[in-house]
This record gives sequence, C-alpha cells and structure tokens, in this order.
Amino acid sequence: MTTTGTLTVREMGVRARRAARVLRSLPTARKASALHAVARELRAREADILAANARDVAAAEGAGLPAHMVARLRLDAPSLAAIASDVEAVARLPDPVGETTPEEVRPTGIRVSRRRVPLGVLGVIYESRPNVTVDVSALALMSGNAAILRGGKETVNSNAALEAAIRAALEAEGLPGDAIQVIRDPARERMLELLRLDDLVDAIIPRGGAGLHRYCVENATVPVIVGGIGVVHIYLDESFTRDPADVERAVAIIRNAKVQKPSACNALDTLLIHEGALPALPAIARNLTLHGVTLRADPPALATLQGAGVQAELATDADYGTEFLALTASIRTVSGLGEALDFIAAHGNHTDVILTRDSAQAERFVQDVDSAAVMVNASPRFNDGGQLGLGAEVAISTQKLHARGPMGLRELTTTKWVVVGEGQVRE
Amino acid sequence: MTTTGTLTVREMGVRARRAARVLRSLPTARKASALHAVARELRAREADILAANARDVAAAEGAGLPAHMVARLRLDAPSLAAIASDVEAVARLPDPVGETTPEEVRPTGIRVSRRRVPLGVLGVIYESRPNVTVDVSALALMSGNAAILRGGKETVNSNAALEAAIRAALEAEGLPGDAIQVIRDPARERMLELLRLDDLVDAIIPRGGAGLHRYCVENATVPVIVGGIGVVHIYLDESFTRDPADVERAVAIIRNAKVQKPSACNALDTLLIHEGALPALPAIARNLTLHGVTLRADPPALATLQGAGVQAELATDADYGTEFLALTASIRTVSGLGEALDFIAAHGNHTDVILTRDSAQAERFVQDVDSAAVMVNASPRFNDGGQLGLGAEVAISTQKLHARGPMGLRELTTTKWVVVGEGQVRE
Repeated sequence: MTTTGTLTVREMGVRARRAARVLRSLPTARKASALHAVARELRAREADILAANARDVAAAEGAGLPAHMVARLRLDAPSLAAIASDVEAVARLPDPVGETTPEEVRPTGIRVSRRRVPLGVLGVIYESRPNVTVDVSALALMSGNAAILRGGKETVNSNAALEAAIRAALEAEGLPGDAIQVIRDPARERMLELLRLDDLVDAIIPRGGAGLHRYCVENATVPVIVGGIGVVHIYLDESFTRDPADVERAVAIIRNAKVQKPSACNALDTLLIHEGALPALPAIARNLTLHGVTLRADPPALATLQGAGVQAELATDADYGTEFLALTASIRTVSGLGEALDFIAAHGNHTDVILTRDSAQAERFVQDVDSAAVMVNASPRFNDGGQLGLGAEVAISTQKLHARGPMGLRELTTTKWVVVGEGQVRE
Repeated sequence: MTTTGTLTVREMGVRARRAARVLRSLPTARKASALHAVARELRAREADILAANARDVAAAEGAGLPAHMVARLRLDAPSLAAIASDVEAVARLPDPVGETTPEEVRPTGIRVSRRRVPLGVLGVIYESRPNVTVDVSALALMSGNAAILRGGKETVNSNAALEAAIRAALEAEGLPGDAIQVIRDPARERMLELLRLDDLVDAIIPRGGAGLHRYCVENATVPVIVGGIGVVHIYLDESFTRDPADVERAVAIIRNAKVQKPSACNALDTLLIHEGALPALPAIARNLTLHGVTLRADPPALATLQGAGVQAELATDADYGTEFLALTASIRTVSGLGEALDFIAAHGNHTDVILTRDSAQAERFVQDVDSAAVMVNASPRFNDGGQLGLGAEVAISTQKLHARGPMGLRELTTTKWVVVGEGQVRE
C-alpha cells in the first residue's frame, strides 16, 4: 500500500491517469463489487474514521468556527452508516459506460458508431462536508473514472481516513488504489496546480459557493463544469388563483420552494406575481413569514401585504437577480407573462417555475425560459438528481456545455467514435 | 440597418443574447428559409464581396505574406458560389432543436423530460479563411444560435462584406441582424474581451493552430471547446501483412492518411509497426517517399528501410507525440499490440487506427484507446463531420467535455429539463 501524502499534484495526476486506464475497461459487475467493498471498509473502519473526524471537529471548535459549520463537518456512527449505504445505492445504478449507438454504414462502406466511455480523470474541489469525499468517489468509480479530490482544510483528517478506506477496498479488489486520491496539503497553490493540470485532468467539478466557482473559472485551464449557482424564480399567474384549491397549491409550492431547505441552490429567490394574482399574495406571504421568511416586495406587492397586515420590506434592485441561500425572498409584480419572461431572461439560469392553468402560457414559458430546469405547477426543489431520476448526483450544472442540471453517472462520461472499415481510404 | 463597427465587444454580446432569444424558438422551416436568403444575398453581392476580398489580398501581398497564406484568403466567383451552396446544404440538415426525450413519470407524479435547445451565443475565433465566416454562421443559425465571430486581421474587409450580406438577408427575413456579428477591430484585446464575456457567451470555439487554442484555454473564462490538435497514429499489425492484398491495402491507407491532405489534423503523424510486419515496410515507405514524404524511423525500421534502399532519417524522441501538419511522418517499431497501446496512451487523443486481421486485437484496440476517434482498417482521414454523417462540421473537438470528434448541428445544442406537475411539492 502506497500513500499519496508526499506526492506533488502532478505526480498524483500521472497516477490517476494510469488508474483511469484500468478503470475505463472494467465490466459493470467489477465496479459494483468495488463499491460494495468500499462500503464494507467504511463500516469496518468506523472507529478510525470517527476518531479522525473528532480531531477535525476539535480543531474547528478550537479555531472558533461557527456552530453550523462545525455541524456540517461532524460525522457520527449513523451518518457514516448512511454514507456507506449511499455507496451501495450507487453500485445498483445502471452503468452508462459501453453503450453504443446503432452502427451506421456510410456511403464509403465504413461502419460508424459512438461508444460511451468514462471522462477519465476528474478533479473535484469542495468545502467542508466529508460525505462529499465518499459520494463523489462512488460516482467517479461507478462511471469508470479516477478522481483527485481537494476538500476543505477543516476536514483534512476525515478525508485522509476516508481515502485510506477507499484505497484499501480498491486494492483488496485488485484495482488501482490511485483511482481516488485526496490532496492533503490545504494550501491554495495545490488547488491551483490541480486547476491547471490540463494534460492529465479531463474536468474540474467545483462544489461550493459562488466564490469557489468563480475562482475555478478564472484560474483553470482544465475545463470546469460550473454548477449550483443561480437565481430561482416562480411566476404565479392570475389563472392559478381563481380556484381556492389552486391558491392552496400555490401556498404549498411556494412554501416548499422557500422553506424546505433554504440553503439549497434550488430554493426560491424571487416570486414574480401577476398583478391580477395579488389578492392571493397575503395567504402566500403569511405562510412564509410564519416560517421565518423575510419578504422584500416591490411597491404594488408591498401595498397589498401591508393592507392585509403581513410584514414585509420594500425591495431594492439588489433583491432581484440575487441568490439568497437563506430565509429571504423577493417579490415582484408583473403585468403578465411577457414581463415575467423578460425578467427571467435577465436574471434566470437555474430553475424557473410557472404556476398557471393556461396550457398555452405553460408551453410558452417552457419554450422561452432558457434555464437548466423549467417547471410547470411543481416545486423548484425537484431540480435534483434523485428527484429527476438520475439516482444520485455529483453536482448541478448551470452551464450549457456538456451537462445541464443534475449530473449523474451519464454526465461523468463522454463518447468516442468507432469506425470499422475494410481498407477504405478517403477520396 | 445598424452597424456593429463601433460597438464594444460587451455591447455586441448584449445584442447577441437578445438575438439568441429570438433564434431559439424559431421553427426549422424559418431557419432554413433564412439560410436560403443568406445564400441568395451572397450571390447577389458577389461584386462587392470580391472587391472587399481583393483589398485584403492586395494588403496581404503588400505586407509580404507567403503565397500559400495569400491563397487561403483569396475568394473568386466559383469559391463564393461554393460557399453559398454550402449554406444551402446546411439548410437541408435535420434540426436537432426541439427533440424531446420520452416523458418519464416519477414516483412523485411529476412528468420529466429533456428538451434539446440551442447553446445560445457562440464565440468563434479563427484565422485567415473567409469561408469560415459563412460556414460557421450557417451552422450557428441552423442550430438556433447567435454568434460573435473574430476572424484574422488579414480578412477584415472580406469579413465585413460577408457579415453585411448575412445581416441584410436576416433582416429581410424579419430576423435579428445581430444574430451574426463580426468583431472588426483586429486588436488582441478585443479577442480577450470575447474570451472573458462569460455572462453573455456560452461557448468559445477556436479554429486554428495549437497556439490559438492554447491562448484561449489560458485566457478564457467562457468554456472553450478545444479541437483539432492532436497526434494521429496507425498501428500496423503483422496479421495485416500476410496476404499481399492486405499489404496493398496498408500501402493505400497509409498513403491516404499522410498524403491526401498533410495539413489536416486527421493526417497521419506516427506509424507504429509490429516487428513482424517490418518486411512490408519498404513497400509502404517507398510509396510515401514517392509522394515527397520525409520519414523518420527508429533503428529497427531504419535498418529495414536502408536494407531496401528507401530513404529515411533516424528519428529522435521529438518525432513522437508530434503533430507534423506537413509531409513528414515518424515510424516506431513495437513488439506487439500491448506496446502499441502503451505508446498511444502516452501520445494519442485525436484519431488512432489499427490495421489487423485479428478481431480480438481490433476490439482490444477500440476499447483501450481513449481518443476522439478509433478506427479499424480504415484511413484516419475519415474523422470528419461529412464522412461520419454529420453533414457539416464547425470544428473537431479533441477534448472530452460536451463534444468529442467532429461537431455538427447537434454539438451546438444543449438540453434543458422540463418538469410538469399538478401542484407537487418535495417531501
């Protein structure tokens, strides 16, 4: 068993490439078996992993990290067991690698198809949740990829213990332990080296806040898949407020969108409300404020809310096109669908929802809105790999190249052209 | 009619985004009709366009540009007519926009599908061939995209004339003339502004030499699709030299690969030859040298060639992993398929070919080689959008994200998730 603790990032890249060459030809059953071995190893090493994690937690507390951040990095026996179970769930997902398009015979007689293959080597950069180390490793391995991981400096001991477990499991299965390597040195220079390793790494996937994504985009020469950053809108049409049962649905969807997990990237930021739907606003808003949401409304919406005795503040321009990631939402009154679409064209790219009973409006919304996910009469919280049927997700892409929306196993693959001839040359 | 001559690159980006919003919802027939209008306008403006081009040619000759570069930028009546016909051919290609995956009903009852949509705004950076201005515009428009083009400084008058023709045709069709805009200022700063316009441009497609691609990768914050750069290998197995008819096929394929268009990215760079196939090498090599190819061979191959009286030089390490783009090829002797695969793993990524009669070897080669195109018993020159059935290509990608190999209309699109519910919220 080797250790990656003293390697340079480039040396890790060379080892990852070598491992990727083995992984890319593994049959599905072999990859699934490796993941089951990883899950077993995580359970067997519970004491070691929790002890390493306790050192991280103690250091974070000693450094005065806020309690919610300490909570994010803490592991315990049930959370580690859940992480191991998630690895087994990934092992049961369908394997996209090896899928081949129907062979086409060209006029020259060459037979042409495309075969789905792993990307190769992934670089994943994330912050303080140690579960990501295992989640990403499982998705990378099941899709036949090697990965170099760079977690937060707060989880360096946890990640080393998790990496050791994964390596031991892979090596026991006769697979290259270098398939998953964690950069242990928390210096920013090491991250920068990873971002610029474009001869060895095929894609960078950042998972974290807008600052991390921007740093990657600004500095990487490896292609970056930017994700999870963006503003979520719901447009409530007047037609969805005529029937009291619809108003109840609107209340429930908007509450779910804002309150269920306010820190999620698919949580509601801005409610666009048709002026004819304003009478339904107090019921919606009251339900949000009951759950602790601060509302920032434009003058017509604010007047409606104040008239109904619902607490709200006057919105400023900065409250639109802003991702709150907290119990705050902005409200904007619009004269109709056209104005809503123009607003979303200026500010949207992540998840946008229309609540309407008019199917022509719904189709116009779906067609015109150019976001990763467009929804009719449903909560934007459904923009999630599990909910949309991918089984698991490595990230949510909000860029257009390669993958858009939740990225599952298939989004960690690419294709190659396969041409079979009988001696043909090009005229 | 407006002109973009005095706009900043950012202003061009804003206009392109606005145009893209119109383009993304156009029916196929409307896009095809616009392309036919462009073709008519190019023919109607023949005199203007050729006069503008003559100014570029005169300036290039005055500046002492080499004759082969002047030839690349020269247009005449037949070449302009061919460009117009190519636009009409693009108008006949199948439109990938609007394709929708089968709707899947999730356990929550939401109905989920993915719809194919244009990327949005493309930034295309290329060098001195004015035909690229029109080719790229046609592919962008037919796939519902706007584009900002940055051609070489040698073609500034030609490109302005071509842009004016395209704009006039679009506006006559009631479509936004800003859909295709050419950056007229040849300063490198303008290109840099385009590369960093990541809030307005969805993808950068460079078309040119390795230096241009590297500049884009180093400087862009917009995602870049790198293409066309890479080393092409042919591995000749002993099994393909037993039958004299196969040797003839090998001679023909290798000649086609090297000689038909030596400046192409899919032309042969390195011949890997099984030591048991060396007796066939003189026939292959003689055929190449007859066509003016300089051969650089490793010691066993060189000894074979010298023994047969065929001219060749001793290869150095720099002759392997090198894209020649000229009438030069390197030759390397290997002990078998495994060594060939290791060599290609170290140097390949573009197009790699095996010539063999052993189907198990062929499948092992296809599986193990991780390049944009992998071929059996055919010329690598088939790695081309037209030859593989895409109809036309905007570039050949050699990266793995988004598109790999020739990029046609489909590769200029992405998908968005469409979710239709009946009031569902996430538990």
